[in-house]
Amino acid sequence: MRLETIDRARQTLDAEAAAVSAEVDSFFAELLQPAGDGRDRLYEAMRHAAIGGGKRLRPLLTIAASQLFAIDRSRALRVGCAIEAIHVYSLIHDDLPCMDDADLRRGKATLHNAFGEAEAVLAGDSLHALAFEILADAATHEDPWVRSDLVIELARAAGPAGMAGGQMLDLVAEGQQLDLPAITRLQQLKTGSLIEYAIEAACIMVKLPNDARTSYRGYARNIGLAFQIADDLIDHSGDEAAAGKRTGKDANAGKATFVSLLGPQRARQQASFLVDQAIEHLSGHGSEADLLRAIARFAVERDH
Amino acid sequence: MRLETIDRARQTLDAEAAAVSAEVDSFFAELLQPAGDGRDRLYEAMRHAAIGGGKRLRPLLTIAASQLFAIDRSRALRVGCAIEAIHVYSLIHDDLPCMDDADLRRGKATLHNAFGEAEAVLAGDSLHALAFEILADAATHEDPWVRSDLVIELARAAGPAGMAGGQMLDLVAEGQQLDLPAITRLQQLKTGSLIEYAIEAACIMVKLPNDARTSYRGYARNIGLAFQIADDLIDHSGDEAAAGKRTGKDANAGKATFVSLLGPQRARQQASFLVDQAIEHLSGHGSEADLLRAIARFAVERDH
Repeated sequence: MRLETIDRARQTLDAEAAAVSAEVDSFFAELLQPAGDGRDRLYEAMRHAAIGGGKRLRPLLTIAASQLFAIDRSRALRVGCAIEAIHVYSLIHDDLPCMDDADLRRGKATLHNAFGEAEAVLAGDSLHALAFEILADAATHEDPWVRSDLVIELARAAGPAGMAGGQMLDLVAEGQQLDLPAITRLQQLKTGSLIEYAIEAACIMVKLPNDARTSYRGYARNIGLAFQIADDLIDHSGDEAAAGKRTGKDANAGKATFVSLLGPQRARQQASFLVDQAIEHLSGHGSEADLLRAIARFAVERDH
Repeated sequence: MRLETIDRARQTLDAEAAAVSAEVDSFFAELLQPAGDGRDRLYEAMRHAAIGGGKRLRPLLTIAASQLFAIDRSRALRVGCAIEAIHVYSLIHDDLPCMDDADLRRGKATLHNAFGEAEAVLAGDSLHALAFEILADAATHEDPWVRSDLVIELARAAGPAGMAGGQMLDLVAEGQQLDLPAITRLQQLKTGSLIEYAIEAACIMVKLPNDARTSYRGYARNIGLAFQIADDLIDHSGDEAAAGKRTGKDANAGKATFVSLLGPQRARQQASFLVDQAIEHLSGHGSEADLLRAIARFAVERDH
């Protein structure tokens, strides 16, 4: 691709990512209005965690995938925000002293540091429930079959067969030396499940037959791993101000990562290979897939 | 009522409660099969918390309400187990060191004592997600409108507008002297929401028009408060072996309860009054409401 074309794709992606971030912030600002009673502190805690910050990768993916099928943007945004609510709750709980004991997240104090541990547990639980309330609402889709499917697949992606299961594998892995297949499996559950759901949700919204979803699932799986490798590279060598969180924590915890197993150079090559594969999965599409292609292409070039 | 009639009602209730407890245990034993990998510890933790123990009041209520409308028992059981999954997750998180710091629950070590804090957070989160997976499954109801409604109302009952919001009010209340309206509001959110949902779910499953649900909602609200008063009475004067958890903890924490505000005698009278009201709400029904009547009648007579 010519350099101007790459620059233009990058500018389009940056503009789209900024727009989605603003829309996600507005959505949560609207949803998390103070209750006017003793629960105000809970809503304030949810707002601290859910508004402002983060790459909003998952809503961006759902909105990008919705462009393939001409899905109404405001509906795709609702689904994206439900996924983001799950993602944010998982970060809150993952940062707790009994888990990763993190002090910095998205450039701010972690929720338990800013509001207290009990509040962080409750705010995470509240966002978890809200995700399903958003999906099951008729405003998300007029077809209740679609809403039920969206709910059941998000519950699977978030639960013990998905994200929470991957976090358990991560806990168990401490002090063990995992090999590449084991790390891949762990990451596919821990972070891959929600990223794959972000794309799958668009397929559910247009009731795409199961056998027509293969290429989209391939795209999602590839970029899920590519993003994780990029994350590992940032943790390995990135700067904390840009990342908005502590780096080097995997190495400090003695955890195996793609980077510790492959070394930075081969890890970067592997991520590039995954990105090429992801883009190949979109070969049946024209310009309506450009945003998905740009997300993949720049997945490994980011510094945060 | 004559004494033999009361004895017979009590025996029927005991038999039904025992049957429901066994069915709930079987349901969770089937659902929470080990995964055969590093997540086995997560499934084991969920089984520790979800199987064996507890009164299973919420599934019992849903099954009793399903008898009013001739709802298939296995479907009512699925809904009851989804509610119980939410209830169990909330107990796990509520028992954490940063919340109530409890060591005993349902006669066993609390989950974080038996498995570790991180595991307890993850097991609670996993049960939370599973609840919605259960509800959105076509096995729960053939009509996707019903499934979507079941999901959205459970999400509301569990989230910041319901249970989690009530737990926040409870946190904020520490060290304050709440009055009766404030305690009532707190308890209606913290424990009432899920109990009300247990009855509402049966109305949703038969698509009862909104204005036909008033009496059932009245029943649910009354017994929710009656149960809470009974709980406070047990905490005030009960024995730990029967309760399966520490008693006297509210007084130790300086928390206002129905008993601390009313005294044990007036609290008991208030509970009886609520039970009478609850039963009055069922006056339009014949023997198909006997189980709901028995649950109400014996709500305040229990010692655990």
